[in-house]
Amino acid sequence: MSAPRTVDVLFSAPQDVYDEFHPAIMAALKSVGVPARISPELAPEDVDYIVFTPNDLIKDFSGFTRARAALSIWAGVDKVLGNPTLTLPLARMVDPGQREGMVEFVTAHVLRHHIGMDRYILSSTGWDQTAPKLARYRKVAVLGLGELGGACAQMLSALNFDVHGWSRRARELDGMTCHHGAEGLTRALSDAEIVICLLPTTPQTENVLNAQTLALLEPGAVVINPGRGALIDDAALITALDAGTLGHATLDTFRIEPLDEDHPFRAHPKITISPHIASLVRVDSSAGVIAENIRRGEAGEPFLHLVSRQEGY
Amino acid sequence: MSAPRTVDVLFSAPQDVYDEFHPAIMAALKSVGVPARISPELAPEDVDYIVFTPNDLIKDFSGFTRARAALSIWAGVDKVLGNPTLTLPLARMVDPGQREGMVEFVTAHVLRHHIGMDRYILSSTGWDQTAPKLARYRKVAVLGLGELGGACAQMLSALNFDVHGWSRRARELDGMTCHHGAEGLTRALSDAEIVICLLPTTPQTENVLNAQTLALLEPGAVVINPGRGALIDDAALITALDAGTLGHATLDTFRIEPLDEDHPFRAHPKITISPHIASLVRVDSSAGVIAENIRRGEAGEPFLHLVSRQEGY
Ligand SMILES: NC(=O)c1ccc[n+]([C@@H]2O[C@H](COP(=O)([O-])OP(=O)(O)OC[C@H]3O[C@@H](n4cnc5c(N)ncnc54)[C@H](OP(=O)(O)O)[C@@H]3O)[C@@H](O)[C@H]2O)c1
Ligand SMILES: NC(=O)c1ccc[n+]([C@@H]2O[C@H](COP(=O)([O-])OP(=O)(O)OC[C@H]3O[C@@H](n4cnc5c(N)ncnc54)[C@H](OP(=O)(O)O)[C@@H]3O)[C@@H](O)[C@H]2O)c1
Repeated sequence: MSAPRTVDVLFSAPQDVYDEFHPAIMAALKSVGVPARISPELAPEDVDYIVFTPNDLIKDFSGFTRARAALSIWAGVDKVLGNPTLTLPLARMVDPGQREGMVEFVTAHVLRHHIGMDRYILSSTGWDQTAPKLARYRKVAVLGLGELGGACAQMLSALNFDVHGWSRRARELDGMTCHHGAEGLTRALSDAEIVICLLPTTPQTENVLNAQTLALLEPGAVVINPGRGALIDDAALITALDAGTLGHATLDTFRIEPLDEDHPFRAHPKITISPHIASLVRVDSSAGVIAENIRRGEAGEPFLHLVSRQEGY
Repeated sequence: MSAPRTVDVLFSAPQDVYDEFHPAIMAALKSVGVPARISPELAPEDVDYIVFTPNDLIKDFSGFTRARAALSIWAGVDKVLGNPTLTLPLARMVDPGQREGMVEFVTAHVLRHHIGMDRYILSSTGWDQTAPKLARYRKVAVLGLGELGGACAQMLSALNFDVHGWSRRARELDGMTCHHGAEGLTRALSDAEIVICLLPTTPQTENVLNAQTLALLEPGAVVINPGRGALIDDAALITALDAGTLGHATLDTFRIEPLDEDHPFRAHPKITISPHIASLVRVDSSAGVIAENIRRGEAGEPFLHLVSRQEGY
């Protein structure tokens, strides 16, 4: 057995991300036995692996003639998928820590609306003993049953919600009703009181929540969108909120981020805004995913979490 | 086999409770095959079973010479336990619907603080991408591992919180660390960031959260009390909140209910108040529990959910 070569990793990310991840990825590579150098800048032809945040720091991938893969440290790679120069195998981040964080965020916001918590947060007077119905009597639609949506749907099902999931292909998940395809969407959304968007942005999913689909929901329903801003038709959302057919929207992702301080979402009384923090990639758990993929590249094994160019996610 | 006798049930409760439960209990008795009459008032000597809300509507139980049991439709029987005239077998309500409701309330409020939701509910400006740590790194103490505390602790453990439970007797529950007794309390509370009180009020549990035990918590910790108001030393709670050693308290139960509009809890910026609605008894599921206990009484079988006078719960 020959000694393993030292691989050259380009780590292209904003400085604070670089500083945080660099030592963790180095340590993770060491623990899987891959000698490596990680640099924030490197001549393209010297790069064995690109580890990157897909936010346009690299515009042209055509010079990376030797690289075996582009490994994203973000879950969402929609911003880079349209780049015609990126023909390398592209892996997105599937991070157990990020999955846990998303389950915590989504469950928190679903339960906030379920038990009507705002009433008590915002006022401490009165003694009106009206209790919410039980979760088992509340229909929740989870759009997207992938790494994140699937995990959220399962936790909501453990809490007894009447969960209806929606995916592209037919899926079977315990404790919920699964729908797929265009007619499946109507069934998933009809009379739902809470909708969670955890789809990728693709030409097929853009504006999946629009005037027509929002009208399927139970009057006063709540939309929670930690997926991607483009999944929702912004104007239709505001119209439905103003008309009262929709009760509330909690938005963590937006078409343009950071969200402009003057954006109408900001001032809307029925919209809760969070700054794309539903679930950040966790250094400790995700560094291991990157290292494992580099190990696989070196061993000639298939990469984990490859993105399908054809399917767009 | 002789035909079953028709039992006379006194149902002593506020009018609205009576109206809601009467038909449900009648139906439940029918379905377990017990012929019965239910009346809001009845000569004590004619009563076979007392079904009641333990809120002092009946002050003297000594005339119920024929009754086989007093069956509470509330979970908490602390208000009636000190009544020396009540020597009948006393059963409290253990209601699957109430258990579900409590799990939903507690999980909601734990997650509210865990993800720092108030920040986003109360303000929609800025773009500060600080994410909370994962649940697995947050210690949560659950005081009381009975019907309700045990179920809440299990759900929080499913969400990966570092759950530490506390009970009187030694218990073993999957996915958490269990403590009991006086030294166990110190271990359960030390460095906990969230504490949930689901104990009954007894001489041993009154003021279990006081200046000394609150000081064991992680600075900025949060107390959630859907158990009983008397579990907390009110003055010590306010002192700790004002000093900032405690971050927040969510209180659903109080020493005197309804909570006075002038009570200092009402105006305190770090206290969330709800009007004892963490989990109401659910008519559909609890009527069956009452009927089952009456069936057992008629069949000479042991009653469910008997309260121990000696242990005080
Ligand atoms: N806000 C945040 O902090 C944050 C953090 C991480 C990720 N995210 C976002 O969360 C989203 C979900 O991530 P993930 O890792 O769970 O993705 P994933 O594993 O790729 O799952 C995507 C899901 O969407 C479904 N889907 C895709 N196209 C569809 C279509 N045309 N019709 C119906 N269903 C369709 C897929 O169906 P199949 O099952 O049939 O493939 C799959 O179930 C992404 O947009 C990601 O960017 C946000
Ligand atoms: N806010 C609401 O809407 C609402 C609704 C329903 C009930 N409640 C209240 O919730 C509380 C819990 O109800 P539950 O049905 O879960 O009661 P439960 O089944 O009787 O459980 C009581 C738990 O407390 C523990 N405990 C009792 N004395 C103790 C002591 N001295 N030291 C340590 N642990 C002690 C018991 O320990 P062992 O396991 O060793 O016995 C048990 O785990 C009650 O106070 C009830 O009134 C509130």
